[in-house]
Amino acid sequence: MERIMMAHGSGGRLSHELIRTLFQKHLGNPYLNQMNDATVLPEGEQIGKQLAVTTDSFVVSPLFFRGGNIGKLAVCGTVNDLAVSGAIPQFLTLALILEEGFPLSELERIIMSIAESAAQAGVAIVCGDTKVVERGSADKIFINTTGIGSITNRQVGPEYIRPGDEILITGTIGDHGIAILSEREGLEFQTPVLSDCAPLNGLIGTFYQPGVKCMRDPTRGGVATTLNELAQQAGVSMLLEEVNLPLLPGVEGACDMLGLDPLYLANEGKALVIVRPDVAEEVLRTMQVHPLGRFASRIGRVQEGKPGLVLLETPLGGKRILGMLEGEHLPRIC
Amino acid sequence: MERIMMAHGSGGRLSHELIRTLFQKHLGNPYLNQMNDATVLPEGEQIGKQLAVTTDSFVVSPLFFRGGNIGKLAVCGTVNDLAVSGAIPQFLTLALILEEGFPLSELERIIMSIAESAAQAGVAIVCGDTKVVERGSADKIFINTTGIGSITNRQVGPEYIRPGDEILITGTIGDHGIAILSEREGLEFQTPVLSDCAPLNGLIGTFYQPGVKCMRDPTRGGVATTLNELAQQAGVSMLLEEVNLPLLPGVEGACDMLGLDPLYLANEGKALVIVRPDVAEEVLRTMQVHPLGRFASRIGRVQEGKPGLVLLETPLGGKRILGMLEGEHLPRIC
Repeated sequence: MERIMMAHGSGGRLSHELIRTLFQKHLGNPYLNQMNDATVLPEGEQIGKQLAVTTDSFVVSPLFFRGGNIGKLAVCGTVNDLAVSGAIPQFLTLALILEEGFPLSELERIIMSIAESAAQAGVAIVCGDTKVVERGSADKIFINTTGIGSITNRQVGPEYIRPGDEILITGTIGDHGIAILSEREGLEFQTPVLSDCAPLNGLIGTFYQPGVKCMRDPTRGGVATTLNELAQQAGVSMLLEEVNLPLLPGVEGACDMLGLDPLYLANEGKALVIVRPDVAEEVLRTMQVHPLGRFASRIGRVQEGKPGLVLLETPLGGKRILGMLEGEHLPRIC
Repeated sequence: MERIMMAHGSGGRLSHELIRTLFQKHLGNPYLNQMNDATVLPEGEQIGKQLAVTTDSFVVSPLFFRGGNIGKLAVCGTVNDLAVSGAIPQFLTLALILEEGFPLSELERIIMSIAESAAQAGVAIVCGDTKVVERGSADKIFINTTGIGSITNRQVGPEYIRPGDEILITGTIGDHGIAILSEREGLEFQTPVLSDCAPLNGLIGTFYQPGVKCMRDPTRGGVATTLNELAQQAGVSMLLEEVNLPLLPGVEGACDMLGLDPLYLANEGKALVIVRPDVAEEVLRTMQVHPLGRFASRIGRVQEGKPGLVLLETPLGGKRILGMLEGEHLPRIC
């Protein structure tokens, strides 16, 4: 089996061979094929007047898991950060750090998955970089994707959140966290849980309208941490209703068994969406029509109260404070 | 001494603390401080009609070396890729992969160096990401920077190169390679060699004019590999004159002693500049006025001949083929 050698990162002949036989083969497009130090993007109307940019490195372990792999995750994670910011994702950069000895066959599977996810999300990989470090100096492969998108009609952000707004989520929570955990620990549940890893820009395009005030994807730290961030940034309080949290039976069972709280588990294909109350019903119904929004649910509301406070209402009517994630729940989840 | 813990990468409370006490403290600006999933860049005239984008990960070892460190390198490397593409560097993203146990004091030194280099280059760090992996799963710190610049008047690229053009370099070659090597191996030379790591956009701004046809920074693989790439892309042949290659005495001595060829050593603050013969003298003189261009030199010319062939004329008048770097010369040089 062919493996990555230090010389694949030298900038010399083997680097060029890797680019040609792997990256250009699967990811090639007129931007990437410029093969200069920087890629020149199209001019004028093909790109918006205002841009959004985001960056993420991916260190997930294991690399391959039910429902995805590090490549798919690297595309979806960055696409989703743009989409929830009200941008249309357009361009991604791709930077790999490879461990000497990493099998080329696994690299090719990851690159093919990147190509597939990028096509699904409608984004082009416009430039890249590959570094190789000695065996033991990195764990197999780390991926950075940076995304650029166009903002067409920006009016989302925590600054628009007001008491009375409704909190929606586009689907079940905790799937990615449980999928990774079960893969890592070799756990088998009665109902296997797949990662929800998916590009959300298609779904968001269907329901994005005036009255949608803020969106965010609850990845690391989960729904609880993300809502804490938003409540702090907006200076509002939030109340979640536990009974309305959409949970797959497999996730619920795994959380019960392992003593995990799904509100702190990572999601990689879900968005929290905060909307004006008068459009909540319409936005929710529109979400539910899309395959990625089938289990969308209204899970709480924004209210007056201590700025930054997030409360959870239990099925019996009690309330408890939902803080930010403390410590490290599940390392290397993305 | 305080150290990075896994929880610094959790997305939870410690992640937020790190962002506030380190990243916002040293790098804060209105873009970075948006603290959303993606950063919205300014509208309209502050950004060019056409954009250039580039990405690079940095895995240099050791992290600190004479003349720079991984942070300075990460800013300069990406700024330079934009500058040699004829773009004005404007925005950088910053993504860190940290090894558990990495000293916070070293991280702060690196971040401060990033802040200083970004200020020098006139670019803003607009968004970031931090991941932490377990001890032994990465070597201390890896940094990705992705850069966005505006193209104002693009007319550079290998497609403009023609036989008869002159090949200039903005200064001495091989400094960075020898600086890293001597640090790594604990070598002491009579004249210590500093890395040339520097942002080139200021220098390039002084001499960039019609007749400047192509620029590229000869990093990994050195001058020889970069000229091979350009000769292939342009479908031309090139002739270098060994006698005109600017070399610091320390680099020359180290290369003699270690049997290294400076033409394959990495540079991190130099540009190869290919110009129309009638402007060569003026461009060269303009370079030499700038502190980063003091040792600029005319080192060869483009000629008819086998496409992709790069020849070196030795001081005695002999010629030998200069190929691309084969194998790995110096791993983890950037």
